[in-house]
Amino acid sequence: MADVMPATRHTSIVPIDGGVSAPTGFRSAALHCGIKAKADALDLAVLAVDTFASMAGLFTTNLAQAAPVLVSKRHLDVTRGTGCAIVVNSGCANACTGEQGLANARRMTEQVGAALGCQPEQVLVASTGVIGVALPIDRVVSGIEQACSSLAHGKGSEAARAIMTTDPFPKEHAVRVMTARGSFSIGAMAKGSGMIEPNMATMLGFITTDAQVEPAMLQRALAESARDTFNAITVDGECSTNDSLFAMASGNSGVVIDEELYPALLDGLLSVSRPLALGIVRGGEGATRVIAVTVYDAKTVDDARQVARTIANSPLVKTAVHGADPNWGRIVAAAGRAGVMFDMQRVTVRIGGILLFENGLPHDESAPKAAEILKRDTVDIEVSLGAGNASATIWGCDLSAEYVRINGEYRT
Amino acid sequence: MADVMPATRHTSIVPIDGGVSAPTGFRSAALHCGIKAKADALDLAVLAVDTFASMAGLFTTNLAQAAPVLVSKRHLDVTRGTGCAIVVNSGCANACTGEQGLANARRMTEQVGAALGCQPEQVLVASTGVIGVALPIDRVVSGIEQACSSLAHGKGSEAARAIMTTDPFPKEHAVRVMTARGSFSIGAMAKGSGMIEPNMATMLGFITTDAQVEPAMLQRALAESARDTFNAITVDGECSTNDSLFAMASGNSGVVIDEELYPALLDGLLSVSRPLALGIVRGGEGATRVIAVTVYDAKTVDDARQVARTIANSPLVKTAVHGADPNWGRIVAAAGRAGVMFDMQRVTVRIGGILLFENGLPHDESAPKAAEILKRDTVDIEVSLGAGNASATIWGCDLSAEYVRINGEYRT
Repeated sequence: MADVMPATRHTSIVPIDGGVSAPTGFRSAALHCGIKAKADALDLAVLAVDTFASMAGLFTTNLAQAAPVLVSKRHLDVTRGTGCAIVVNSGCANACTGEQGLANARRMTEQVGAALGCQPEQVLVASTGVIGVALPIDRVVSGIEQACSSLAHGKGSEAARAIMTTDPFPKEHAVRVMTARGSFSIGAMAKGSGMIEPNMATMLGFITTDAQVEPAMLQRALAESARDTFNAITVDGECSTNDSLFAMASGNSGVVIDEELYPALLDGLLSVSRPLALGIVRGGEGATRVIAVTVYDAKTVDDARQVARTIANSPLVKTAVHGADPNWGRIVAAAGRAGVMFDMQRVTVRIGGILLFENGLPHDESAPKAAEILKRDTVDIEVSLGAGNASATIWGCDLSAEYVRINGEYRT
Repeated sequence: MADVMPATRHTSIVPIDGGVSAPTGFRSAALHCGIKAKADALDLAVLAVDTFASMAGLFTTNLAQAAPVLVSKRHLDVTRGTGCAIVVNSGCANACTGEQGLANARRMTEQVGAALGCQPEQVLVASTGVIGVALPIDRVVSGIEQACSSLAHGKGSEAARAIMTTDPFPKEHAVRVMTARGSFSIGAMAKGSGMIEPNMATMLGFITTDAQVEPAMLQRALAESARDTFNAITVDGECSTNDSLFAMASGNSGVVIDEELYPALLDGLLSVSRPLALGIVRGGEGATRVIAVTVYDAKTVDDARQVARTIANSPLVKTAVHGADPNWGRIVAAAGRAGVMFDMQRVTVRIGGILLFENGLPHDESAPKAAEILKRDTVDIEVSLGAGNASATIWGCDLSAEYVRINGEYRT
C-alpha cells in the first residue's frame, strides 16, 4: 500500500507539501468561531478559489441527510458544477435540525457569497459533529466574516485541523502530476473517524486541483477515484447523515484535462485519496490495526466487494484481529453469509500471506506464524473464491474495547 | 414480552416443567464423553422417541455448512421427515473438517441407530463448539453407547446443560396446549450465544411434542414459529456454520393436528420458542441489556424487519444502549441506511415509550427520562416509518467491552 499510485504511461506523480493549498488559485482560512467548547479549537474553515472553479460532489446515501448536504446538492445542481468557495464547520453536524437547520446552512453560503462577491449558490457547505443540535448561527456568521477577510495561500494545514472531530490526527496530502502536456497539482484533506462505511463514510473530504476540468468530467473522475478509496473503507459499517466529498478545479495550471489526460487526473486523484482513506481507517475510533481484506477470483467485482465488506465488518473477525488470533474459521463463516454464491471447497484463506484454509480444511500448523503477523500495524486478509477473475479490496480496522468506551460515553 | 403467547380461540396454553422431556414418548440422556476438557462438563446428549416420530429441521443459510448440518439435511430428505432420535455434542462444531468430518457425523448417527434399532438415516445430528477441529470420535462413540443404554424419561434438563458452550445459563421451556379436541405438550431447549443473527443464529434448538403431526405440517409450523422467534434475534449479526433447529412429534397424546388445530400447534411452538430466543439474546456474549426494536407503519413486513435488523445490529446504537445514552440520532441514521425507502420527515422514534424524534426534529427535553429507562434490563426502541401498516420486532442486545474481551481471547 504505497502512498503513490503507479503512474499512467507518460505521467509521473510525486508527493508535495501543502495539502489543499498546494494547487495554485486557492486560498483558505481557519479559526475558532465558538462551536466547540474548547477556546482554541479550530471549528470553521473557508476554502475559496481566486476566480471560478469547476465543482463536483459525492454525498451520503443515507435517507437521513443533514441540512448542509441538501443545500450543497441543490447548489451543485443549480450552478451545474461551478462555484467559488466551500465553507465547513466541525463540532455540530446541523443534522435533524428541520427548517431552521436548512436556513442556517443557507445562511452560511449567503455570508460567504456576500464576502467574496459571488452568489450563495456558488458556495458549498459541509458540517460534522453532533446530530440534532442547532448551530450557534450568530457565532458562525461572525466567524465566516472574519475568515473571508483573512483568506491566504498556503494555509491548507490549518483547514485540515479545523475539520477534525474525534480524529486523532489531521489528514492531508498533495501530489504533482507531470504529463507530456504540462503538470498540475492536486491537494486534499479529510476527516473521519466513527460511523465509517463504504458509500461515503462519516467523513468529509475536500480535493483541490489547478488542472482545468469541465464539471462533468470532474464529477466522473471524483466518483471513479472514490470507488476504490473513500468508498472502500469501513470502520464500523455505519453511514452518516453528513458524508460529503468535494472537488474543486481552478484551471490555473493551464493544463486542460480531456479524454487523453483523464487517466492522469484519475491517477492523481487516487494518489491523494488513498492515503487519506487509509488515514481515516487508521484513525478510526479505538482502532489499533488496519485490516486490508482482498477477495480474489470472484465472479464479479461486486461479488468481491460484497464478500470483502462482510469480512471487514464482521465483529468476530474484527475482535479476532484485535486479539491477534488467526481465526480463519470466522473469516470463512463471514464469507459464507455475504449473500454471494461460490463453492466453499474452492476457497482459500490467507492471513499475511500465510495459507490457513484450503480444500475445506485448515492448515493449523501455520497458525503460530500467522499469529505473529497479526501483531503488525496492518494485516492483510486474502480470500480466493475460485469462482472467476474479479477482485476487490476493502480496508477496515479491528474492534477494541476502546471503541465501546468512546461510543458508549460520547454524549454522557 | 410475556413468556406465554395469547392463545388462539378455544385454546389455552400453560407453562409446565420438564423441558424437552415434558411431552410423553421421549427419553433422553446426557453425559461427559471427553470433548470438553473439564472432567464433569456435559458434552453429549441423545434425545430419542419411544416409537417413531415426525421430524422437521431448519438450518443455517451460511454457505459454509458444518458436517452435522449436511448429514441431518440429507437424512431428513431420505426419510421424508421421520425418525427416532437426535444426537448432539458440544465443545466441537465438526465444521471445516472435510471428508473425515462427514464420516464422523455419519458415524454418530450409525452408532445411535445401532443402539436403538433404527436406521442411521432416522437419526439427526448436531454439533456446536470450535470450528476446524476434528471430533475425538472414539470418545464420542463410547459416549453414545453409554448414553443410549441410560435413556430415561424426565431428564431433559441435563440435555439442556449438555448443549451449552459459552452460554451463561441453560435454556429450556415447556407448555401444555389445551384444545377442544384434547391437550398435548411441547418442550424445547436451546443454546446460544455468540455468532447470533436472524436466519438461524449460532444456535441449536430442539423441540419435542406429543401431538400427532404429519412431517410436512411440522416443518411448516416450525418455519412459521421460527420466523418471529429464533429468526428474529441478533447478538452480533453473525450467522454460523452449525445453526440448526429441530422438532420431533411423537404423537403419543393422540391429538391429531389438522388445519383446524394448526393454530394451536403454532401458538404452542411460539410459546416455547419465544422465551428461549430471548434467553439466547439475554445470554449473548457480553450482553447486559436486551433491546427490542419494533418498526411500525412500514410498507411491508420485510421492510419493517430490514429496518429493525439494521438498528439492532448497529454498533453505534448498541454502544449507546450500553452507555444508557438515549441517542435517537444513531437510530435515525441506522434506519436511513437500511436500504428501505421512506420519508424521514414522517418518522418517529421512541425509547421506552418516550418520544424523542418526530417531524425531522428531536425532543431533547425528554432525553433525561429516556436515559433512566435505558438503565433497565430490557429496552424498547420503537420506530414508526409512516409508510404503511406493516410491523416487525427484532430482539438484540447491547455491545460491551466484555464482548470484545470474550471474542478477542476465545482461542488464545
